[in-house]
Amino acid sequence: MFAHNKRLQYSVHVAECNPGLANLMLEQFGGPQGELAAAMRYFTQALAEEDPGRKDLLLDIATEELSHLEVIGSIVAMLNRGAKGQLAEATEEAAELYRSLHGAGNDSHVTQVLFGGGPALINSGGQLWNAGYIDSIGEPTCDLRSNIAAEARAKIVYERLINVTDDPGVKEALHFLMTREIAHQLSFEKALYAIEPNFPPGKLPGMAPFDRTYVNTSQGDGDTRGSWNSDENFTYVTDRKEHLAMDGGDGLAVSSLTPEETEAIAAFADRTASNPKDNPETGAELGE
Amino acid sequence: MFAHNKRLQYSVHVAECNPGLANLMLEQFGGPQGELAAAMRYFTQALAEEDPGRKDLLLDIATEELSHLEVIGSIVAMLNRGAKGQLAEATEEAAELYRSLHGAGNDSHVTQVLFGGGPALINSGGQLWNAGYIDSIGEPTCDLRSNIAAEARAKIVYERLINVTDDPGVKEALHFLMTREIAHQLSFEKALYAIEPNFPPGKLPGMAPFDRTYVNTSQGDGDTRGSWNSDENFTYVTDRKEHLAMDGGDGLAVSSLTPEETEAIAAFADRTASNPKDNPETGAELGE
Amino acid sequence: MFAHNKRLQYSVHVAECNPGLANLMLEQFGGPQGELAAAMRYFTQALAEEDPGRKDLLLDIATEELSHLEVIGSIVAMLNRGAKGQLAEATEEAAELYRSLHGAGNDSHVTQVLFGGGPALINSGGQLWNAGYIDSIGEPTCDLRSNIAAEARAKIVYERLINVTDDPGVKEALHFLMTREIAHQLSFEKALYAIEPNFPPGKLPGMAPFDRTYVNTSQGDGDTRGSWNSDENFTYVTDRKEHLAMDGGDGLAVSSLTPEETEAIAAFADRTASNPKDNPETGAELGE
Amino acid sequence: MFAHNKRLQYSVHVAECNPGLANLMLEQFGGPQGELAAAMRYFTQALAEEDPGRKDLLLDIATEELSHLEVIGSIVAMLNRGAKGQLAEATEEAAELYRSLHGAGNDSHVTQVLFGGGPALINSGGQLWNAGYIDSIGEPTCDLRSNIAAEARAKIVYERLINVTDDPGVKEALHFLMTREIAHQLSFEKALYAIEPNFPPGKLPGMAPFDRTYVNTSQGDGDTRGSWNSDENFTYVTDRKEHLAMDGGDGLAVSSLTPEETEAIAAFADRTASNPKDNPETGAELGE
Amino acid sequence: MFAHNKRLQYSVHVAECNPGLANLMLEQFGGPQGELAAAMRYFTQALAEEDPGRKDLLLDIATEELSHLEVIGSIVAMLNRGAKGQLAEATEEAAELYRSLHGAGNDSHVTQVLFGGGPALINSGGQLWNAGYIDSIGEPTCDLRSNIAAEARAKIVYERLINVTDDPGVKEALHFLMTREIAHQLSFEKALYAIEPNFPPGKLPGMAPFDRTYVNTSQGDGDTRGSWNSDENFTYVTDRKEHLAMDGGDGLAVSSLTPEETEAIAAFADRTASNPKDNPETGAELGE
Amino acid sequence: MFAHNKRLQYSVHVAECNPGLANLMLEQFGGPQGELAAAMRYFTQALAEEDPGRKDLLLDIATEELSHLEVIGSIVAMLNRGAKGQLAEATEEAAELYRSLHGAGNDSHVTQVLFGGGPALINSGGQLWNAGYIDSIGEPTCDLRSNIAAEARAKIVYERLINVTDDPGVKEALHFLMTREIAHQLSFEKALYAIEPNFPPGKLPGMAPFDRTYVNTSQGDGDTRGSWNSDENFTYVTDRKEHLAMDGGDGLAVSSLTPEETEAIAAFADRTASNPKDNPETGAELGE
Repeated sequence: MFAHNKRLQYSVHVAECNPGLANLMLEQFGGPQGELAAAMRYFTQALAEEDPGRKDLLLDIATEELSHLEVIGSIVAMLNRGAKGQLAEATEEAAELYRSLHGAGNDSHVTQVLFGGGPALINSGGQLWNAGYIDSIGEPTCDLRSNIAAEARAKIVYERLINVTDDPGVKEALHFLMTREIAHQLSFEKALYAIEPNFPPGKLPGMAPFDRTYVNTSQGDGDTRGSWNSDENFTYVTDRKEHLAMDGGDGLAVSSLTPEETEAIAAFADRTASNPKDNPETGAELGE
Repeated sequence: MFAHNKRLQYSVHVAECNPGLANLMLEQFGGPQGELAAAMRYFTQALAEEDPGRKDLLLDIATEELSHLEVIGSIVAMLNRGAKGQLAEATEEAAELYRSLHGAGNDSHVTQVLFGGGPALINSGGQLWNAGYIDSIGEPTCDLRSNIAAEARAKIVYERLINVTDDPGVKEALHFLMTREIAHQLSFEKALYAIEPNFPPGKLPGMAPFDRTYVNTSQGDGDTRGSWNSDENFTYVTDRKEHLAMDGGDGLAVSSLTPEETEAIAAFADRTASNPKDNPETGAELGE
Repeated sequence: MFAHNKRLQYSVHVAECNPGLANLMLEQFGGPQGELAAAMRYFTQALAEEDPGRKDLLLDIATEELSHLEVIGSIVAMLNRGAKGQLAEATEEAAELYRSLHGAGNDSHVTQVLFGGGPALINSGGQLWNAGYIDSIGEPTCDLRSNIAAEARAKIVYERLINVTDDPGVKEALHFLMTREIAHQLSFEKALYAIEPNFPPGKLPGMAPFDRTYVNTSQGDGDTRGSWNSDENFTYVTDRKEHLAMDGGDGLAVSSLTPEETEAIAAFADRTASNPKDNPETGAELGE
Repeated sequence: MFAHNKRLQYSVHVAECNPGLANLMLEQFGGPQGELAAAMRYFTQALAEEDPGRKDLLLDIATEELSHLEVIGSIVAMLNRGAKGQLAEATEEAAELYRSLHGAGNDSHVTQVLFGGGPALINSGGQLWNAGYIDSIGEPTCDLRSNIAAEARAKIVYERLINVTDDPGVKEALHFLMTREIAHQLSFEKALYAIEPNFPPGKLPGMAPFDRTYVNTSQGDGDTRGSWNSDENFTYVTDRKEHLAMDGGDGLAVSSLTPEETEAIAAFADRTASNPKDNPETGAELGE
Repeated sequence: MFAHNKRLQYSVHVAECNPGLANLMLEQFGGPQGELAAAMRYFTQALAEEDPGRKDLLLDIATEELSHLEVIGSIVAMLNRGAKGQLAEATEEAAELYRSLHGAGNDSHVTQVLFGGGPALINSGGQLWNAGYIDSIGEPTCDLRSNIAAEARAKIVYERLINVTDDPGVKEALHFLMTREIAHQLSFEKALYAIEPNFPPGKLPGMAPFDRTYVNTSQGDGDTRGSWNSDENFTYVTDRKEHLAMDGGDGLAVSSLTPEETEAIAAFADRTASNPKDNPETGAELGE
Repeated sequence: MFAHNKRLQYSVHVAECNPGLANLMLEQFGGPQGELAAAMRYFTQALAEEDPGRKDLLLDIATEELSHLEVIGSIVAMLNRGAKGQLAEATEEAAELYRSLHGAGNDSHVTQVLFGGGPALINSGGQLWNAGYIDSIGEPTCDLRSNIAAEARAKIVYERLINVTDDPGVKEALHFLMTREIAHQLSFEKALYAIEPNFPPGKLPGMAPFDRTYVNTSQGDGDTRGSWNSDENFTYVTDRKEHLAMDGGDGLAVSSLTPEETEAIAAFADRTASNPKDNPETGAELGE
């Protein structure tokens, strides 16, 4: 069960109203690399987790991400607060309020007109948050790798936001949030390697030799060798004929059909057959 | 530039028409862990990649994933082929065709009625593929971690599909596809560690000591210690007062406003103020 | 800031593994009327709320809804737990595992194959949760009405789930969750009527007489009068000519254009003009 | 059945081409609080309605909302009309046309480049309209509450658009549309209270005493009492131990498993168990 | 402006309650080829249409499609009506009601549990309708081609539904709706060819000879010649070297950068460079 | 199987960094009329195609569209390349970087902050690509018509992009891409008319006389006659009474119910009946 205290995990002091900056901050509120995605990623994993240690870890970090959602959402609310009252009360002329939605090229009109200055679960382009941002599949060695990657991505998006932010209070709070992603990434790394073995993931072994084969499908200038396709790590297949098909078969897709199915598909094929010999007049000629 | 050969990377031999199984296969065609997501993940990364070796790697694997999309899509088409003709030509009674959409509890009606038995970019539940499944952000140490995790997830979904598949030809092709994820994961691991350093990602350092602090936000029975929150790796903070706020400040969110903004927001607050003292009659009482 | 205790707000005792029932429960986990939508609805409102009493109320209920998300998610996890191990470990034959995904017509294949039995933020049909389910707009008298309606809807979806659930432990927990929606609805009703006046919402008055006019646009058998369109409450307009246009004008849409714009649009109109006099041969005739 | 007359319900006179303003108007065309959502909300409810009076009401208002969709869409078309011809005919230099897509910070490039200046079912940020905006559930006391809330929200979004609009003809038409939401809200209120009782919604009673309990989950500075959580209306529970669990049980989630299920889940848990004692080397150390 | 009459365009007589069949019918209510998509496709085109004849045509057919939406929605409502009351009133045991959601493998649980038996704007798989289904771009020769294609598709989906429907009243109404698509397709064909010329669409001519070149990118067994790539219609390019690049250039993507940009991108490239010579230890080896 | 060569189908030379222009180009990368939609449209059709000639055609064009995706994506990457390094390395002050995200009203912040300057599968407004953009249904005469329309639309969006582009290298590459749509459209026209007959599509004949009836549903000023509704092609029905209902029946929707169903629905109707006679006090009066 959750509890809440009205104090934030990190204080938020905003120097001046800036809806354009608020809009950018939405990337980490309702964007794909943002805090709701993080919180829900770990929380949903936790609920089905069988290992007590990982369950505790996932709940700890999920809960903290909810607190981060609160911090970044409070930044959005504070950056919009001045403009919010002016639009709601119409204390300015229409032309001035119209400019405030686009001023200096900012892109805050969705937040202001649709959401009244409140933080919404969209990214800075207005895309609705959706659960496709969460890639958990209920297998711990996969989900921990996904979590490691997600923390790394969130760290970088915070870094970019810091790079474009001038307001010192906002910058500091963003720096704190960015830092916590580093700590979380480390925890997830430890938890992944506390499972042994963890590579390859799952139970079913690969089909040799394809688990150590590298297929050079993109050729021409720029072909490069490195540890990722080196002979010491991989069988390097570059002759295109060897790909067609790698089972040594004919590379065709075939299906067995019952007589009734065969008859039905033949009727369909016949009815919609193309006549390649003719050069029919078409809509294109009619339209030229 | 791409080229194509009509032979598949792996031959597909389907033993009998099975639209229910075809529907499950859509997970790896148009699902979040499927081959389109994989191909587009690596392809879009490749286009903006500055490092020639990684660009080649990403193009090699992106191209192979397109060939895998073709293999799994061909499996779907072959599993549906018998039913497709029967529905299109109405060679059976309506009641029989209706049953074929749901028979044995299968869930193939979307594929059959809407898509005519063709492979569609949906998952097995009918959810449209969307680009939110791709989490690339244009930073190589993050994107490689995302790719490692994605390959791990795809391996497991193939494993699950293999576990529920009886058709030997389908099983074999799935096994090949599953195996290639292992090889790709290894390549991406090698490419990640060919960048030094790669942790923490990006350029901006964390704010000490929060990059090595673990916050025990979920407490009560089940609290567990492990390497992911051990004292040797982290400062372990469990007293809730220390979280409020971790900057040592008041934990409030505040914003500086101009006088005009102050006046406007005060007018808004006043106009919409709640009166907590009264116990007003409400719609609920009216409705009881 | 949030804290968490590993005990649930309500104990969950599941009598037997039932992935089909688990799938239905997803309606209140990741569905439009579910607990994530509720929690995020109130939480995002709270962050921008100016009134201290409402802010406290919104945070109290948002936090409780997160705990409900945990309860319903735990129900999903427990109902899937038996099947999860069997699929992951392949302890059954493929044909048997295939049947378990569809047995008795259940629709659990997405949860099992894609999510490994974990609770996912989808509804029972597999539709990804999206933030369009949240209708908050940052105006308290609107948002409270939205909240009242949302609690009413959630109450009913729980009622339907209870009606189809046989497992006594699940039924009891659902009953608790359903009951809390009643209490929350009442709180929101009280908070709405603590704002005076609250109807019509906002600041701008309507344009008389259209704020008390009822337009009888659907006519014919079935036309009914009631308090919602009675003469004591409304001017009832039934003559269709009076709707065209209600401003008394010509009902046209016109725009003033600069000479350059006029010339450009005329060129466009001319280039794409239709010739109604002719009876051209078309693709349809070609194709017959 | 529907019929149509080419005159609008309210005349639209646009003073000058303004694609930036047109883009904002899309909020009420293809946005969540817009006229398509309204029309479809009432229309889908009407089709399944059992009560003749409500069916008539829903059809009357659904039909009128379609006419409002036509008015707001005509505003969009007229505001874009000048720019449309210029882009289609390329009557200006590229640099000038490029500027027209972004001039004065407007955000009209999607409308112009993708939709050719026509009204599209997107909001002002380009988000595609989706049916998740409609929250009807087929229970009249819920749906009427949802309708009341929806009309209130639409009223406010119109108010905000009016506040930022300088064009007198557009302003007047918006004022009419805003006004109609007030009238519709009143009709839906009357229809709700014509059902007795309507609170709590549905048939199943709550589980006492939880239907009149208020749980103070958010604590600390800012805790407030009001009619929404007063002792006269609620049992106020503030001691966190009383929430864990409110059934008086252990607050755990447990499931009964068959022996086969138990064995399978144990095998899964064992295979993926974490080893908390070790401090394994991880990818993070490798990458530092 | 729209008006409505409560009689349908075609009478609907449903022989027995069948939620599974109702669910299939949703394809033409809230599916991509359904009546809402059709109505909105033509309606949004009409609002921006410059040609009076086409505007009238688009409004005529848009309005009729709304009436078709009403017919198919009424079929859904009638097919669900029996089950709706039983679930709402819980007149059956839970086990029986549970079975009714999945009976005979039907997939009606979303409609019944979430939507209470009402027609919802989803397809038969539960996918929410979204405006991406509408492909209008505001150019008449394109939009008419899109409309022709849309009518053809809708005709076929109705044909498939007819093929699986046993209920004579439903079958007849579907037949009527299917037939109207034929008539509409013909009207749109006539309207397209009333614009002269209409091919190629738009104003800008192609770059010879690429407007009559066919590139044989897919080679190997199965290469076929027909009128679509015949020598009389196209220059047939099959040598892959001729595709790289077709401008006769180097086929590279290059950009001019300022000195500051050059320096910045070099710093980025350097910081994230890969070292292909080494064979680093990776997370994969750690995890094996 | 696919293969790749690192040279592009058309060389891309970008004159200067321009993230605003890059953002517009996304329409043809991840937008509804863009190259991914085209490639996937033809590729998925090909996999289920029964006719060898059409299968070859679809694979040829699908493969070429992937190469076009590469060209347009490379344009995006090159236009962003200068800005990418500056944001990643923070070589400019925050205020300057902030301006670069919005400068000259461009809308590139999503690409820069979220995607690090890489091409993403979104349109220029940030809308995620989704598979609802693909309208294939597995019937060749429909799918070819859809393809013809899709090529026409893509041609026009390229034309608009050309009209707003000043950079000569970008303009030339766009011109090439635009031209290829013309060639593809012609191929699909030939393939459509190689099927005889192809109108009406499918197997089931229409229900006379409704396949040649035109219903004049939109009346009033602006009614127009043309070949699309002429007497020589259609029976023109303008009297509204003839539409109600066209089967000559009562225009009602009725369903047969079992006695149990009748009783249940009656109980539901009774419980939620409205009382039209009363004028109840409502929430609106309480709130005024």
